[in-house]
Amino acid sequence: MELPRAGLLSDLDLEAVVDDTYRYVETYRGHGRQASYIPALEKVDPNKLAIAVVLGDGRTALAGDAEEPFSIQSISKVFTLSLVLDRVGAILWNRVGREPSGSPFNSIVQLEAEKGKPRNPLINAGAIVVSDQLIGADTADAAIAELVSFLRVRAEDASIAIDDGVAMSESQAGALNRSLAHFVAAFGNLDNPVEEVLSVYFRQCAIAMSCRQLARASLYLAFDGVDPITGETVTTPDHCRRILSLMLTCGHYDNSGDFAFRIGLPGKSGVGGGILTIAPGVGAIAVWSPGLNQAGTSLAGAVALERMVEATGWSVFA
Amino acid sequence: MELPRAGLLSDLDLEAVVDDTYRYVETYRGHGRQASYIPALEKVDPNKLAIAVVLGDGRTALAGDAEEPFSIQSISKVFTLSLVLDRVGAILWNRVGREPSGSPFNSIVQLEAEKGKPRNPLINAGAIVVSDQLIGADTADAAIAELVSFLRVRAEDASIAIDDGVAMSESQAGALNRSLAHFVAAFGNLDNPVEEVLSVYFRQCAIAMSCRQLARASLYLAFDGVDPITGETVTTPDHCRRILSLMLTCGHYDNSGDFAFRIGLPGKSGVGGGILTIAPGVGAIAVWSPGLNQAGTSLAGAVALERMVEATGWSVFA
Amino acid sequence: MELPRAGLLSDLDLEAVVDDTYRYVETYRGHGRQASYIPALEKVDPNKLAIAVVLGDGRTALAGDAEEPFSIQSISKVFTLSLVLDRVGAILWNRVGREPSGSPFNSIVQLEAEKGKPRNPLINAGAIVVSDQLIGADTADAAIAELVSFLRVRAEDASIAIDDGVAMSESQAGALNRSLAHFVAAFGNLDNPVEEVLSVYFRQCAIAMSCRQLARASLYLAFDGVDPITGETVTTPDHCRRILSLMLTCGHYDNSGDFAFRIGLPGKSGVGGGILTIAPGVGAIAVWSPGLNQAGTSLAGAVALERMVEATGWSVFA
Amino acid sequence: MELPRAGLLSDLDLEAVVDDTYRYVETYRGHGRQASYIPALEKVDPNKLAIAVVLGDGRTALAGDAEEPFSIQSISKVFTLSLVLDRVGAILWNRVGREPSGSPFNSIVQLEAEKGKPRNPLINAGAIVVSDQLIGADTADAAIAELVSFLRVRAEDASIAIDDGVAMSESQAGALNRSLAHFVAAFGNLDNPVEEVLSVYFRQCAIAMSCRQLARASLYLAFDGVDPITGETVTTPDHCRRILSLMLTCGHYDNSGDFAFRIGLPGKSGVGGGILTIAPGVGAIAVWSPGLNQAGTSLAGAVALERMVEATGWSVFA
Repeated sequence: MELPRAGLLSDLDLEAVVDDTYRYVETYRGHGRQASYIPALEKVDPNKLAIAVVLGDGRTALAGDAEEPFSIQSISKVFTLSLVLDRVGAILWNRVGREPSGSPFNSIVQLEAEKGKPRNPLINAGAIVVSDQLIGADTADAAIAELVSFLRVRAEDASIAIDDGVAMSESQAGALNRSLAHFVAAFGNLDNPVEEVLSVYFRQCAIAMSCRQLARASLYLAFDGVDPITGETVTTPDHCRRILSLMLTCGHYDNSGDFAFRIGLPGKSGVGGGILTIAPGVGAIAVWSPGLNQAGTSLAGAVALERMVEATGWSVFA
Repeated sequence: MELPRAGLLSDLDLEAVVDDTYRYVETYRGHGRQASYIPALEKVDPNKLAIAVVLGDGRTALAGDAEEPFSIQSISKVFTLSLVLDRVGAILWNRVGREPSGSPFNSIVQLEAEKGKPRNPLINAGAIVVSDQLIGADTADAAIAELVSFLRVRAEDASIAIDDGVAMSESQAGALNRSLAHFVAAFGNLDNPVEEVLSVYFRQCAIAMSCRQLARASLYLAFDGVDPITGETVTTPDHCRRILSLMLTCGHYDNSGDFAFRIGLPGKSGVGGGILTIAPGVGAIAVWSPGLNQAGTSLAGAVALERMVEATGWSVFA
Repeated sequence: MELPRAGLLSDLDLEAVVDDTYRYVETYRGHGRQASYIPALEKVDPNKLAIAVVLGDGRTALAGDAEEPFSIQSISKVFTLSLVLDRVGAILWNRVGREPSGSPFNSIVQLEAEKGKPRNPLINAGAIVVSDQLIGADTADAAIAELVSFLRVRAEDASIAIDDGVAMSESQAGALNRSLAHFVAAFGNLDNPVEEVLSVYFRQCAIAMSCRQLARASLYLAFDGVDPITGETVTTPDHCRRILSLMLTCGHYDNSGDFAFRIGLPGKSGVGGGILTIAPGVGAIAVWSPGLNQAGTSLAGAVALERMVEATGWSVFA
Repeated sequence: MELPRAGLLSDLDLEAVVDDTYRYVETYRGHGRQASYIPALEKVDPNKLAIAVVLGDGRTALAGDAEEPFSIQSISKVFTLSLVLDRVGAILWNRVGREPSGSPFNSIVQLEAEKGKPRNPLINAGAIVVSDQLIGADTADAAIAELVSFLRVRAEDASIAIDDGVAMSESQAGALNRSLAHFVAAFGNLDNPVEEVLSVYFRQCAIAMSCRQLARASLYLAFDGVDPITGETVTTPDHCRRILSLMLTCGHYDNSGDFAFRIGLPGKSGVGGGILTIAPGVGAIAVWSPGLNQAGTSLAGAVALERMVEATGWSVFA
């Protein structure tokens, strides 16, 4: 099938693109290795495959298991960052940097060299600092409630919830994140007690959302912070652009450069197999397939995004 | 003055935008510190200020010293990468990575950890590997001649040349680059003798070009590898996208994330005070002002780009 | 006063040497900076100064506050290592290395590069692993009771005890050690829960001993593992030599090389201002003065040891 | 055979100890892997095995190939350090540190973190700095002539010479050392041109000496800097003790801790398979066997030293 490239968006047959992508990527179904550090992720059916696209004019196209919730894991870091940026503003950057780390997601080396200031909010240590700021002067429970509420409103779907089993497993298997949190705390970079902060962090990673919910909830990031369907201003254009640039340069750990090339869109992957990508001025795309490549990004998910961007010309570099 | 944002490109008053930007940035003239490691860079008039924009339809707008050649330094890495990618293709990535380094431009730490394979072609060690590939089975003189010839054709300007004094100074002050080159060589990652490779590297850094020449020469990068004025295919869409994604994620050393946020365009800076940026589908922008910020990027140049992108909405994240 | 050098030990006027040393070092009393990370250490009188020497024939010489207990801190690592080596033998080296780290006492960088195996048992991470082995299949309370009992027997002094206030303060201020422990645990290198292990670690650091007790308790290390006064075999010659070589190469963090030169004896310092040194075949020396040098070693204490080794010729290099 | 341990030195049957050691270690002959980075080292007969002991009273015992010259490689660092310490004194420590590096011999990481000041004079970068100081205001040829002359006088043997073939091979295979030297130079830590300094460094590594010559030449290090046979003062007691402490803590790269434990004597190994050890107050021991263990130390050589120290009780920790 020949797809129109770089034409007018209104002429795009979105259903056809998504169908073509889904059929193409089905041969990759089950490839890669699922995350195995907690049973809840390991026991997910490896053949799950889902695509959801939501455009600014409200058009939505789904394929595969796009309505089935999965553990969004690190994708949650995008939303806590968005909430916290709006709350505390630029002083957040005194506590966490904005540069690619060049290291795996859980590296502690730079944290030592840079005295407890994580490189960016999308690596684990940085997201832990953001979780602390999300608590602020309130409680962990209030912080996580605010996040879930935000996602429900943005996705127009009240069913979004935390998978408590996953959250508990995350905490039990969380020695490395616990180490990172205490390390950051040792440099005075947490306002709240470590276990309080981690209870937010582990729960935000355990949020379960479907591809449809993810794409819908993040649509405002494609339109300078304004939800194009409801017209609500969710964040400032400045914060929106900051989030997108962080996603493009740091969204996939030490695989971010390659993702930027292959997909050419700001994105964030999670070890649950989900990837969220934003096409500025166009819409949001979420994919899910549990098998991961060596860098911890969904293998089939990345192939799907590559195919779709090839077909639509949505790469920011085209 | 109110500038139209995100409108049709054909309606844009390019002259007005460039004039406004130039006037705005004049207050930053002379700010920052010039590179001082070689006399030729230190003695450049710190008040130099230049902007050049070339669009796909051939419209060109200049301001300030846009016709005056300056030392392009690391901006040259973009062009050698382009030439070498076309010559050797994807096997280049066996010799140099494609990820942000999270380290200063001349760091040797990752080089040791990764056994002589530089993180990306835009840090010094990576550009040295690219220089070696540019020589290939030929000579250093032939390689540098090919590069200069390429730039003259692309810029439609036969006057482009190497500043031999700068090249000699670079070599004399080049202990750290010499160390990097020998380090890479120790891991078998250079095909040619170190001094041969460095003679290309130091001379490519010493190429003198004006902002107008830089913007014109790189225009093909904004159009999937095709020069929109001559219609020539300069490189493949794939190589073009790879170059742009590397510029966005790695073009400004450990300041790349911040540049991506502030400017939102693929770019490459040089310690001579030049910055080249590409607006995909639109055109190329080159700025020059010798005073550098702490990360080694032109201070006034970055402010100018920020202003212009704000006015035109060219950020890839908007 | 002229002191005999390198003569027969039986001819040595030990009292005279200790008196001379004490008088000489009094001018350094109060120099340096006390540890300030916990109030209990910060409020110690900075003018405290103590020397105790115990020789193999039982001769003992004391000066200053040699009977006053202070927080032995990291000196305790020598004794837990001794106990654990006897219990588990050479398999300890599967869990902790035996090489100098070249890094500060609490660095986490090598721990990441070496996958959770600390460089040696005398840096914090290594001592945490040793604490875990001291617990073994028993409880933290039993482990700490065993250690205290061991010290009481060895020092022939039942008054030795843990300063519970210091232990509690250590735990409260222990974010970095907590981070190290969770990091080690993340690599499966702890058999017991992190807080259980830390409760041993923080309490062993909070043991209070006088210089006299310290020197007496460690006398067996100067005689191939046999207490020369009671005749008891405390550890094997092999374990004894291993402990001494670790003290010489790693006993003072990133100041170990300088200590080896200046003093020329195996030693271990603690941030409480104590230093324990062993003169093989001769005896044990303990000094105490709370002011630390930049490397965290007692400033006056090191001067005293240097003076005494100069006078007696006890350096292993002479 | 039972050997007397810890008895009077004058009662020691040195010949018997050396014979026993030689016979014991013969089963290790040919074990390990020879250095292979240059042909001259690779083609040495792997079955070579040699022991030489020279005591303070002049007694000398030899076994195996103890009169056959071999490439002393890094053992030369001990002698250049001795010469340079006497020439420039303590200001040497402004240019090179005195602490264990915790890293392999050729690591460049710490060099970057510590701005071109090598950790100690016994790693390659540090020895390069010492070579530069040996040149001083003179020439490379003069420096190397001074070193060879020093060794001839100390060994009472005018036949000691540089193996020019090895020196040339070292230079050709010296990319990593060349990188280290340029790196150090980049921080202003070399007074002479890099290739001049390296020509000293590579030639000092290519000095050929027999075990007998090595042990005799270094005898002064066992006696506070005074040659016990000629009575000459070669260096100060202070410099002597500094050299020995550096040998004990840093003499075997990242295997120094283990060597300190197993042998318990200050030593220096070379990749040619030689090991020099000093027994303070007793004498000097040199062994040679080309097969290396994983840390680059002679495998059979280390076993021989362990056996001999066990038999004689010469360990500084016993």
